[in-house]
Amino acid sequence: MFMHNKRLQYTVRVAEPNPVLASLMLEQFGGPDGELAAAMRYFTQGLAEEDPGRKDLLLDIATEELSHLEVIGSIVAMLNKGVKAHISEGDMEEAELYLSLTQGGSSHTQAILYGGGPALTNSAGVPWTAAYVDSRGDPSCDLRSNIAAESRAKIVYERLINLTDDAGIQDALKFLMTREVAHQKSFEKALYAIEDNFPPGKLPGVPEYASMYVNASQGEGDMRGPWNDGPEWDRVDDLQQVLPADDGDGTPSVALDAEDMAALTQLAERTRSDPSSNPTTGADLAAGPGAGRTKSEIENA
Amino acid sequence: MFMHNKRLQYTVRVAEPNPVLASLMLEQFGGPDGELAAAMRYFTQGLAEEDPGRKDLLLDIATEELSHLEVIGSIVAMLNKGVKAHISEGDMEEAELYLSLTQGGSSHTQAILYGGGPALTNSAGVPWTAAYVDSRGDPSCDLRSNIAAESRAKIVYERLINLTDDAGIQDALKFLMTREVAHQKSFEKALYAIEDNFPPGKLPGVPEYASMYVNASQGEGDMRGPWNDGPEWDRVDDLQQVLPADDGDGTPSVALDAEDMAALTQLAERTRSDPSSNPTTGADLAAGPGAGRTKSEIENA
Amino acid sequence: MFMHNKRLQYTVRVAEPNPVLASLMLEQFGGPDGELAAAMRYFTQGLAEEDPGRKDLLLDIATEELSHLEVIGSIVAMLNKGVKAHISEGDMEEAELYLSLTQGGSSHTQAILYGGGPALTNSAGVPWTAAYVDSRGDPSCDLRSNIAAESRAKIVYERLINLTDDAGIQDALKFLMTREVAHQKSFEKALYAIEDNFPPGKLPGVPEYASMYVNASQGEGDMRGPWNDGPEWDRVDDLQQVLPADDGDGTPSVALDAEDMAALTQLAERTRSDPSSNPTTGADLAAGPGAGRTKSEIENA
Amino acid sequence: MFMHNKRLQYTVRVAEPNPVLASLMLEQFGGPDGELAAAMRYFTQGLAEEDPGRKDLLLDIATEELSHLEVIGSIVAMLNKGVKAHISEGDMEEAELYLSLTQGGSSHTQAILYGGGPALTNSAGVPWTAAYVDSRGDPSCDLRSNIAAESRAKIVYERLINLTDDAGIQDALKFLMTREVAHQKSFEKALYAIEDNFPPGKLPGVPEYASMYVNASQGEGDMRGPWNDGPEWDRVDDLQQVLPADDGDGTPSVALDAEDMAALTQLAERTRSDPSSNPTTGADLAAGPGAGRTKSEIENA
Amino acid sequence: MFMHNKRLQYTVRVAEPNPVLASLMLEQFGGPDGELAAAMRYFTQGLAEEDPGRKDLLLDIATEELSHLEVIGSIVAMLNKGVKAHISEGDMEEAELYLSLTQGGSSHTQAILYGGGPALTNSAGVPWTAAYVDSRGDPSCDLRSNIAAESRAKIVYERLINLTDDAGIQDALKFLMTREVAHQKSFEKALYAIEDNFPPGKLPGVPEYASMYVNASQGEGDMRGPWNDGPEWDRVDDLQQVLPADDGDGTPSVALDAEDMAALTQLAERTRSDPSSNPTTGADLAAGPGAGRTKSEIENA
Amino acid sequence: MFMHNKRLQYTVRVAEPNPVLASLMLEQFGGPDGELAAAMRYFTQGLAEEDPGRKDLLLDIATEELSHLEVIGSIVAMLNKGVKAHISEGDMEEAELYLSLTQGGSSHTQAILYGGGPALTNSAGVPWTAAYVDSRGDPSCDLRSNIAAESRAKIVYERLINLTDDAGIQDALKFLMTREVAHQKSFEKALYAIEDNFPPGKLPGVPEYASMYVNASQGEGDMRGPWNDGPEWDRVDDLQQVLPADDGDGTPSVALDAEDMAALTQLAERTRSDPSSNPTTGADLAAGPGAGRTKSEIENA
Repeated sequence: MFMHNKRLQYTVRVAEPNPVLASLMLEQFGGPDGELAAAMRYFTQGLAEEDPGRKDLLLDIATEELSHLEVIGSIVAMLNKGVKAHISEGDMEEAELYLSLTQGGSSHTQAILYGGGPALTNSAGVPWTAAYVDSRGDPSCDLRSNIAAESRAKIVYERLINLTDDAGIQDALKFLMTREVAHQKSFEKALYAIEDNFPPGKLPGVPEYASMYVNASQGEGDMRGPWNDGPEWDRVDDLQQVLPADDGDGTPSVALDAEDMAALTQLAERTRSDPSSNPTTGADLAAGPGAGRTKSEIENA
Repeated sequence: MFMHNKRLQYTVRVAEPNPVLASLMLEQFGGPDGELAAAMRYFTQGLAEEDPGRKDLLLDIATEELSHLEVIGSIVAMLNKGVKAHISEGDMEEAELYLSLTQGGSSHTQAILYGGGPALTNSAGVPWTAAYVDSRGDPSCDLRSNIAAESRAKIVYERLINLTDDAGIQDALKFLMTREVAHQKSFEKALYAIEDNFPPGKLPGVPEYASMYVNASQGEGDMRGPWNDGPEWDRVDDLQQVLPADDGDGTPSVALDAEDMAALTQLAERTRSDPSSNPTTGADLAAGPGAGRTKSEIENA
Repeated sequence: MFMHNKRLQYTVRVAEPNPVLASLMLEQFGGPDGELAAAMRYFTQGLAEEDPGRKDLLLDIATEELSHLEVIGSIVAMLNKGVKAHISEGDMEEAELYLSLTQGGSSHTQAILYGGGPALTNSAGVPWTAAYVDSRGDPSCDLRSNIAAESRAKIVYERLINLTDDAGIQDALKFLMTREVAHQKSFEKALYAIEDNFPPGKLPGVPEYASMYVNASQGEGDMRGPWNDGPEWDRVDDLQQVLPADDGDGTPSVALDAEDMAALTQLAERTRSDPSSNPTTGADLAAGPGAGRTKSEIENA
Repeated sequence: MFMHNKRLQYTVRVAEPNPVLASLMLEQFGGPDGELAAAMRYFTQGLAEEDPGRKDLLLDIATEELSHLEVIGSIVAMLNKGVKAHISEGDMEEAELYLSLTQGGSSHTQAILYGGGPALTNSAGVPWTAAYVDSRGDPSCDLRSNIAAESRAKIVYERLINLTDDAGIQDALKFLMTREVAHQKSFEKALYAIEDNFPPGKLPGVPEYASMYVNASQGEGDMRGPWNDGPEWDRVDDLQQVLPADDGDGTPSVALDAEDMAALTQLAERTRSDPSSNPTTGADLAAGPGAGRTKSEIENA
Repeated sequence: MFMHNKRLQYTVRVAEPNPVLASLMLEQFGGPDGELAAAMRYFTQGLAEEDPGRKDLLLDIATEELSHLEVIGSIVAMLNKGVKAHISEGDMEEAELYLSLTQGGSSHTQAILYGGGPALTNSAGVPWTAAYVDSRGDPSCDLRSNIAAESRAKIVYERLINLTDDAGIQDALKFLMTREVAHQKSFEKALYAIEDNFPPGKLPGVPEYASMYVNASQGEGDMRGPWNDGPEWDRVDDLQQVLPADDGDGTPSVALDAEDMAALTQLAERTRSDPSSNPTTGADLAAGPGAGRTKSEIENA
Repeated sequence: MFMHNKRLQYTVRVAEPNPVLASLMLEQFGGPDGELAAAMRYFTQGLAEEDPGRKDLLLDIATEELSHLEVIGSIVAMLNKGVKAHISEGDMEEAELYLSLTQGGSSHTQAILYGGGPALTNSAGVPWTAAYVDSRGDPSCDLRSNIAAESRAKIVYERLINLTDDAGIQDALKFLMTREVAHQKSFEKALYAIEDNFPPGKLPGVPEYASMYVNASQGEGDMRGPWNDGPEWDRVDDLQQVLPADDGDGTPSVALDAEDMAALTQLAERTRSDPSSNPTTGADLAAGPGAGRTKSEIENA
């Protein structure tokens, strides 16, 4: 069960309203690496987790991320306080209000549609979607997803810090950014506290394909490094070797019964293309300058 | 530039058509951990990458994932070959065709809308979205995202293998699953070939918040482990300490100019709620049995 | 700031696993009227609210809805416990596992993609989207939206109760359903505690259009009732009166400068259709049996 | 069956083209509270409604909303008339055209992708989705949703009016805004013309939970009002009372058979975390300045 | 302005309720080729069209498609009439109701969430999105899009007809299917009534690239036909010729100023990968059976 | 199987970085008519195609479109090279960086979220969705969809060319635009190489409805042209004739069994509206100035 105290986890001090900056900050409120995505990622994992230690960890961090959602949302609310009042009260010259909302970001939508409240969108106004939540119910991949998610959140906070010179906002963003670093460390510990965590899951790989490196992009710029070279790797430079990688002929097949085969044959015949034709086409009828055939060519055909 | 050979990277041999199984397989065609997501994740990273080694790696694997998209899509096409023919030719009893498409999965939609072709949806019929692609343009987080994505793809293949007894499909899925393991290994090498890859990005964290663990979920089930306990961690069990974590008062504030303040005051006054009222409400007017107040109570009020 | 206790707000006792029923329950976890939508609707409103009473109310209920999200998510996790184990361990006959996941709902996707954890999707597997959150930053419409949302959530719980005979699940659903009724009552009180809450917002309507009822759908089945008849209404049965409703000519116009007009004229001329032509079309070229013109007619044209 | 007359329901007179303003107006064309959402909300309800009076009402207003969609779409088309011509004819300096489309809103996308036609997106360019339509097939909640939707639409029109000084546009927006007020009044009448409309639906609530108010957000700022205080309410300030609210232990449980239990035990064992370990992690390997452990500490571990 | 008559454009006679079939029919109500997509495609084009003939055509067909939306929605409402009543009244055994809703399609979601009303989703329950509407504001491509859309709608109706043996539904579907054929013919006429409709738009192509056919997919199965062979085509079989197609070196470049170059160099250096390293990775630490390196190898490294 | 060479199909030379222009170019990277949509449209069709000639054609063009995706993505990467470096290195004044990202388009989101890499969004920042891919598994409609898609892509390239004066970008865009023209020609040939391609699919239309033109939009502006007039058409101007078009009564009906009928009757009775009532409503309670009834009127009622 959740409980709440109206004090924030970190004090928010904003120097002055700025609806455009507010709309940029939304990236960490309703964006793919924002705090709702973080909270929901860990919360959904925590509910289904069997291991008591990981369950506790996931619920601890999920809960803290909700508190971070509140901090970043409060920054947005402060930055929008002026525009919220003016668009509600209609007490400003229309042209002036219009100008204040067309300075960039998605500030116009934030004011018109969301009335200056923090909206669960990213900085372009795209609504948050649970497609951002990549919980899969297996700790050896979920913990890796969490590590990656924390690193992405850290970077986005870093970019926002690089964008604003409001000291109070910078302080709060640095707090939030650092907490992502701490969370990443916790998830790293939890991953490596599982004895056999690689490969993820249970099924072993097929040995002959587990060390193969397919050099599928060739030409100038082909490089070697520890990721494709050395004793760990069977590097395939001649792509004919994997065309196919097994000993078959590289074609797809399915065994059809007579009824299916009859229908398929009928379909194929009905929609057969005639490779030896040269039909007049709609484009031929219509072709203006620049097309392959001129109208007179068509007319004289 | 891309080139293509019509042979597959792995031979696909399907024992018999099964449109329901086809719809489950779509999870790795158009699902969040499927091959299109993988290819696009690495491709978008590769185009903007400055480091020549990583660029080559990303384009190698992006290209191979496109070949995997072709393998899994070919499995789907084979499994759907019968239903595609029958729904096109209309040569089967309606009731029989209807039954064959209501056996589960999203087979009905795959047949009616996509005509039995492999569709870029997941197994529930949800269209693929680029919201699945978490490329952020920083190698210290993108490589972690790639590691996590490969581990998720591995697990989903494992689950599909656990679901089908068609030996040819199992073979192809095991090949694809194993390639994810190999790719994960490559991305791990590339991550650790960057000297300072943790914390991700460039900005250091704020020291006092980098080792703090907030025990935000308490009560029975509270656990200790290397993720929240030991000399690396400053564990906060008394949540009053982080209410707020800084030395402020935990409230949000913004400095408003006179014009903004006037509008805000007007707004607040206009929409003020009267805490001492006990207004009759729409629900009171309408309350049937089961509501807090009865109609006679309202009428007699 | 949020805090959490690992005990639930209501005890969840599930009689036996059932992944199909689990997928139906998701409607209230990640569906449009589910608990995440509720929590986020009130939370986003609360952060930007100026009135202290409403702010407290919104944060109280937002917090409780998160606890409800945990209850319904725990029901889903319990119902999925068997399938989660089997699809992870691969210890069941493939065919048997396959059958257990194709019994309806979106159980197949829940197992393959989400591994049996509670997923933020609705019962069809559609990911939750913030498009469900209709917070607009004005209390006279937000409170009405909240009243409506609570009534929708109540109905969906009622339907789920009608669908399951598991007594433990029914108990928990009845608790959750009743809490929506209580929340609706609170929001009703808060709406009517604002003195002038109708029309919503600040601007008055244009008097001559505020009592007009346009009988736009006519024919058999035309009805009268308090919504369109009586002294409050100016009923328009003769639609010519509102074609247009003002004294203009009902056409759209814009004043263009010379440069715009020149470009527009050029565009109109370039793409002009010739109403007096009877062109041969692509369809004419291709028309098979069933089309309006036969091939011979086209050939002889 | 629908019929159409090419005259608008309200005459549209636009003073001059302005593609940025056009993109803001889209909020009521393809936004969540726009006219398509309104029309589709009532139309889908009307088709399934059993009560003849409500069916007629819903079809009347659905039809009128389509006419409003036409009015707002015509405003957009007029505002875009210049840019549509220039981007099609390519008769303007590239740099000048570029500048005209980067003045804010989503005007660039409206011109490049939609060619200046009215697009079914909101003002940020987000495509309309039926996720906005909250029809649930029960009149006691659908009518409340309609009341709320009309109040939201009214507010968004009010904000657009506050943003533009074009008198002709203002007139049309005021007409549309007022019609929402009139529609809200009709839906209110229809709701209260159902005798027992509260609680919505049929099932009564559980009496002991219907009047409970859970003060889940505490601390400074805790308030009392008619929504949580007084004889109608059982207010819970000590949250231990609802941890859980029933007489159970607040934990989730499910009865598993032996086969499920065996698989679950195996899964739990396989993925067990070792709370007494202190594993070296990937982050430890990689930690640069700012991380908890230094490299030398790891190397010497 | 739109008007409505409560009679349908085609009489709907349904033999018996069937919620699963209802959910399949939704493909043409709220699916990508359904009637709402059609109506909105033509309506948005019509509002911005300059040519009076095309404008009239587009509004005629847009209006008729709305009437078709009503017909297909009425079929859905009839098929759902039983389940709507039972899930609302709760008068059926839970288990029986549960079974009736897990027979396939998205019938469970249609009942639980939408209460048996016609929902704007496709047959998998995916909400309609304006992403389906491909209006671009240029008649030479919009009319081609309309032709294609009508042909897709025709096919989907054909498939639905092949799936049901209810004679009344078949009749209505055949009417709707045939109307799509008629609409396609109208759009074909309108396309070819524009004199220069190919290439679409205004700019001519670059002559040397307009007749080039790039044989990008090679190997067994390479074919010739009128689409890539003959005097109209410059066929490129040796892909080296188009690597690149111009006379450059096929690499991307941008001129950076000194400040940009300095930052880029710093970034590249900071995130440089060391190709000569062979770092121990997270996967190495964790590798269980099946990974490339064994634990003992790592420990002894 | 796919292979890749790091040289581009067309050399990309960008004059100077410009993140705003970069965000506009995304329309053809991750927009609805962009190169990913094209590649995936043809690739999904190709995998399921039975006809060897069309299969080859579809895979040829799908592969080439992937190469185009690489060209347009490389343009974006070049245009973003400066901002990517500065937002990563944090070496620019915050205010200066902020200004550079609020000049229009979705440049702010591209930098903050995607770090300057090419993102699979359109120019408004909307993520790519497979809802853009309209493959239906029938060549007579898929080829028409492909023709339409190529024409749309051509137009969008034309508009982008009209927007930029960077000669290197213009060159590359003209190459890409022209290739769409060539592809359209190929698809036209392939369509007309199918003997009976109209009507699409297999089922003939119902003769009496195949030539009917319903003049559903009337009033001033009604026009005649080859699309609705002449011997091919049965034009319906008197809409009573199609109310309904068949010989029924235009109402929907379904045969219900006794159990369904009983439940429906109960539902209808329970939710009956009373047309003769004039209930006091929530709006009446709350009506401020501008509403139909004043408070005193309500109180005195």
